[in-house]
Parts: sequence; C-alpha cells; structure tokens
Amino acid sequence: MSYAPFDWIDDEARRRADAGLVRTLRPRAAETELLDLAGNDYLGLSRDPEVTAAAAAAARTWGAGATGSRLVTGSTELHAALERELAAFCGFEAALVFSSGYAANLAVLTALTGHDSLIVSDAGNHASIVDGCRLSRAATAVVPHADPEAVRKALRAHGGRALAVTDSVFSVDGDAAPLGVLAGVCREAGAPLVVDDAHGLGVLGEGGRGALAAAGLAGGEGIVATLTLSKSLGSQGGAVLGPARVVRHLVNTARTFIFDTGLAPAAVGGALGALRLLRREPERAARVRDVAVELHGRLVAAGLTAVRPDAAVVSVRAPSAESAVRWAADCCAAGLAVGCFRPPSVPDGISRLRLTARADLTQEQIATAVDTILATAPLPVG
Amino acid sequence: MSYAPFDWIDDEARRRADAGLVRTLRPRAAETELLDLAGNDYLGLSRDPEVTAAAAAAARTWGAGATGSRLVTGSTELHAALERELAAFCGFEAALVFSSGYAANLAVLTALTGHDSLIVSDAGNHASIVDGCRLSRAATAVVPHADPEAVRKALRAHGGRALAVTDSVFSVDGDAAPLGVLAGVCREAGAPLVVDDAHGLGVLGEGGRGALAAAGLAGGEGIVATLTLSKSLGSQGGAVLGPARVVRHLVNTARTFIFDTGLAPAAVGGALGALRLLRREPERAARVRDVAVELHGRLVAAGLTAVRPDAAVVSVRAPSAESAVRWAADCCAAGLAVGCFRPPSVPDGISRLRLTARADLTQEQIATAVDTILATAPLPVG
Repeated sequence: MSYAPFDWIDDEARRRADAGLVRTLRPRAAETELLDLAGNDYLGLSRDPEVTAAAAAAARTWGAGATGSRLVTGSTELHAALERELAAFCGFEAALVFSSGYAANLAVLTALTGHDSLIVSDAGNHASIVDGCRLSRAATAVVPHADPEAVRKALRAHGGRALAVTDSVFSVDGDAAPLGVLAGVCREAGAPLVVDDAHGLGVLGEGGRGALAAAGLAGGEGIVATLTLSKSLGSQGGAVLGPARVVRHLVNTARTFIFDTGLAPAAVGGALGALRLLRREPERAARVRDVAVELHGRLVAAGLTAVRPDAAVVSVRAPSAESAVRWAADCCAAGLAVGCFRPPSVPDGISRLRLTARADLTQEQIATAVDTILATAPLPVG
Repeated sequence: MSYAPFDWIDDEARRRADAGLVRTLRPRAAETELLDLAGNDYLGLSRDPEVTAAAAAAARTWGAGATGSRLVTGSTELHAALERELAAFCGFEAALVFSSGYAANLAVLTALTGHDSLIVSDAGNHASIVDGCRLSRAATAVVPHADPEAVRKALRAHGGRALAVTDSVFSVDGDAAPLGVLAGVCREAGAPLVVDDAHGLGVLGEGGRGALAAAGLAGGEGIVATLTLSKSLGSQGGAVLGPARVVRHLVNTARTFIFDTGLAPAAVGGALGALRLLRREPERAARVRDVAVELHGRLVAAGLTAVRPDAAVVSVRAPSAESAVRWAADCCAAGLAVGCFRPPSVPDGISRLRLTARADLTQEQIATAVDTILATAPLPVG
C-alpha cells in the first residue's frame, strides 16, 4: 500500500489557490525603505535604542532563555519587576506575565471557568479568546458585537458561574467596546468581566494606562485584564492583570502558565524598558490617537469608507478579498506596508485594508501614506 | 446585592492549602550559588556568552519585538535563517517557528485534523499535547503509555483521517518512546506520526540532531516533529519540522501561528546562536547523556528508585507529595535546585524529584549533587 498521509493537504492547497486565499511568508530585512502602517508597534518603541538596549542587557545579565517553567527555574527578579510595574501602571493589584497574549487569554478563560460555567463572548473577539472558550470546559454564548443587552440576557439565562469577555478595542475595525456598560451588566449578574486590552495599553487612558483605566474600571473587584507586551511595549509576551487572588489562582491552575517555559529575559527586559520610557513620555499615547484620527479623517474626506478609530487601528473597507490583496500589494510596491484582512480572519466576511497609526509617524509620512492609499485605491470603493 | 465574583477562588485556595499543594513563585537572582539540576538548559547554553551575545545583537539589529504576526510584519530574515538551519540540522524539509513549543503543538494538532479525525495520544504526553487534542475538533483516543499495539488498534478502529502523537522523551520519567515501532504502525495505517522532541533536540542523535534523527525517521514522509527552542537551545519559542507542504498548510491554517505575534528577534537570534554552537561542538550532546546516566547510576546504587534515563531527565521517586516537596526544599537549603513533580502534574499520581543533567556540569558538581540528594532523602525511599 502506498503511504500518502498528507495528500489531502494538496487538495486543500489547490482550493485555497483557486479562491485567491494563499498566504505566504515574506521575511523582511532589518533595514527597509518601506513606511510601516501594518505592524502593531503603536508607540514606535520596538526599535527605540533605549528599549533594544534594555532587551540586550537582559539577555546578557539573565541569559538567552528563562531555562524552565515559571514555577521551576523560569521566574527571575526581572519577571517580578515587570509584573509589579505593569500592575502599578495600569492600576491593578497584581500581574502575571506569559509567553504570549494568546497564552494569557487561554489561561484566564480556562482557569476562571469550570464544567458548569458560561462564557459570554462578543462575536468580534480575537481568535485567542475564541480558542480560550473552546479549550475551557465551559459553555460559550457568542453574543452580537458590542451589545451589552445581549450580554445581560445571556448572563441572566445561566444559573451557575459565568463571566463575560471582550476585546477593549476590536482588531478588525478598531472600534472600542462599551466597557462601562458591560461592567455594570456584569456587576449586576455577579460575574467577572475579562477585557483583552491588547490594543488599548499604551494608546488609551492617561499616559497609555489602557482602556480600563480610561473607563475608571482598573483594579475593580471583578475586573480582569489581559495584555500583550508585543504591541505598544514593542516586545513579546502577554500578561494578566487583576486581583492578587486571581493571579495566585492562575499560578496554581492555569495550564498555559504552569506547562510553558517562562518568557525570555530579553522580552521581559524590553517590555520593562518600554514601560519605563512610556511613563516618562506619556504624550506618546495621545500622539498615536491623534495620528489615527488624522489618517481616518483624510481617507474618509477623500471618499473611502472607514470606521472612526477609537484607538490606533484604522480599518478601510475594500470591495472584495481579491481587490484588498491587490490594493495592499500596490501600496507595498509604492513603498507603504499596510495590513490586509480578509476571510477567514474577518468574522463578517468583509475585506479591509488595515492601517495602524504610530506615535512616531511624521506629518510628512502621514501625507505620504494617505497619498499612496488613495492613488492605489480600487474603484468602486466603499 | 454584594458583588463577590471571585469568592469561590478563596475556597479553592483553602482546599489546596489543606492538601499541601500550594504553588508559589520564587523569583531568582541573576547570579546564584545554587547548583541547578532543575532547569531544562541541558547543554548549558542559555548563559553561554556566545549565545547571549547573539540574542543581544538580534535585539539591537531587528528590534525588541517582531512588531506583528508572522504573516504581516513579524517575519524577518532572521526567522527564515533559523527555520532553514533548524530543518537542515534535524534532517527535515522545512521548519516553522512559533512563540512557544506549546503553540507549536496546538498548531499541529488543530491544523492537521478535522471533525472526522482521530488523534491517538500517549497517556504520558505533555500538557500542551493534551490541550492541542482538546482544542482540535478531532476525537481523541488516549492509549496506555508507550504501547504501540494500542496505537495500532486505535488507528485500525477509526475509518477517517487519523494521526498518532507522542513525546519522544517523556517529561516525568525521562523514558523514550518506541519511535521506530510507532512509525511502522502509523505507516501501516496511512497515518502521520507527530513527535514532540522537546527533550530530544540537543540530547539525542548524532550531535544532538534529536530523537527522530536517532531513529532514522527524520524527514520521513509522514513524520512531523515539534520542538522547543527553550531547552537545549537555551532560548524561547517552538518549532514544527516536516514536509514543506505541511509547513505551508500551517502558515495558512494554524490559528496559533496566524493570530500570534512573531517570536521576538532576541529569542530567534539566541536559538540560532545556540544551534550554530552545537553544530561546532557536537560532543555536548553525548556529554549530557553521560551525565544523566552517571547521576542515575550513583543514586540507584545508593538505594533510590529511578528509571534509567534515555535522555537528560533523571526522575527519582518520592514516597509522597509532601515528602517530595520537603526533599526538594531540603536540597535547595543545601544549595541544590531540583525539580519536584507531584499531582496534578504527574498523570500516575506518583511524586518525584526531577533532576536534569547538563552538559556543563563538572564531576565535582555531579558528586555534590548526589551527596546532597542522598543526605536529604526521606525514609523510606522507593
């Protein structure tokens, strides 16, 4: 008998090719002429000399790796310092660092629920939240996007333990969740509210303290935040912020914490360097919001369709997946890197150019970006 | 109504305390007098000046973070170099780097299966494999530990697509899987064999090429390996090795690849530096195996119970969870860091001291470690 265990993969690859949905990696050089409106380095800190020096120093002082899981040899005093300073900055009692934001979401959603639990999840939530719901033993109620009344109904309909989970800023359209109303709904139901502030930290709130600080909810009794260290903080990793007892519970029960190697010292050091820089230069957070609003305003004034950004993500609609891919490729050929969201990454099936504002963009770069996007726009747009 | 959404956490914490199962983080200093037989830095490369310099240089050249997911801005030429060199070193057609070994296992197990699939999983497999099975939409058949006949029966009983998955070296007892027999069983059933070589890379095979190279299976048509960059390579991250079409399939479909920020340049650079060092100094792999065998031999000769190590992990039985914790604490007080595995981390409920050999241990350090373990051993042992 012939052994062909992966022939089905070729069939799927052909179907993807026929649908124009093949994704390929395009490794980039260290130095590029491309103007980057595609990455998530919102504050421009990933390449900041102070931040990269902090990352490099951490590797030299603490080693290239953490050498073990956090409960064995993988917790250094550097991890403890980052957890202390992150919690204090964002206004929470305690923090716990993970190797990714993905792992942080999986941890919270699995460790704070059980067989009899319900997770009420916004339809626009990030893939890592969707996977956390699936990995948990809880039932999941997916409610319409940004609909607190639906959350209320779902929580009310469930007898046992329950929580609600939402992105603070949604990755696809850059719109913000109604956190204040959601927190009220959760409090009324006796349920915690879990908020993934991946796109809020460094952008929203006073000096970039995040969406929960902006909403006056940071440190609240039932509030748990998940973060990434890889966007505004320009590094890698994730974190959970919340009451100390929640963090202790995760240390004891969260499988993506217990069974994963600790975050590498360079990533911890880089994030800590970025956090200290942001504390010293809080105006960076306001600047990235201003840049996003300016990008949006100019593109909409020129006839494109885009949701007014609540944070740093500016999402511009494209007529089709194919035209979105071509638009992004044309921008790239003209020297501008932009993101391109299309099925299956977009829950509503609508393809978009996805632009990310950065605090370190100059007015000239903003003008160049807008000119390039308009010059390459497919017709009809909208 | 009072709002107390986390009071149940206090109840669980009390139950853990009553059972003597509370885990707490003990952050370590950069320099310590402790002799480390607890971490997974098998080749002693995490603190090697060449490796930490490679990590530091990568942070300075490429930035503290990858700035985006691998399909947007998160793929650098450094990632591509690591993937090329890892695949070549281990004898596979292609490689794909993830932010953790955990994420690599989740990727393979979810992307290579569907609704109608079966995953046949060894009862001793790592938690990340267990979670990958749960996250997939496949059915899972958990078979007895190291039992190829049970794998054969489970594969035969299933009509549709199936795969088998095993650790190459099991984390708890340090024993090796019967990879040759398992590969034959899978070939016969037309199923791929997925092997987590976290504890084999750098330790087993010629020059540390891993368990699959050692078994003559590397690069086989139906063979997929997952790796970690955080053990022998002293850094952080994970990887999948396999046929190029499998890697392309993961790029297009694996959610822990698509929706995660790329591995930080410092971690990529550190792993690449360690890999190049290992190619130049292949004797490190043989040395760590010799150290493990010597540790085991001395401890067993003195009356302790331990499985003969197939790689770098030496697992010594303890009479109970409480005595294991005390034993490990007494070792620590005497200057020796050892691991302590106890429920729920051990599938069979047996608590152990877990020692890891390192290639850079001196004969004097080995003698000190053995003396300390014997001097602190609880009675009765075995």
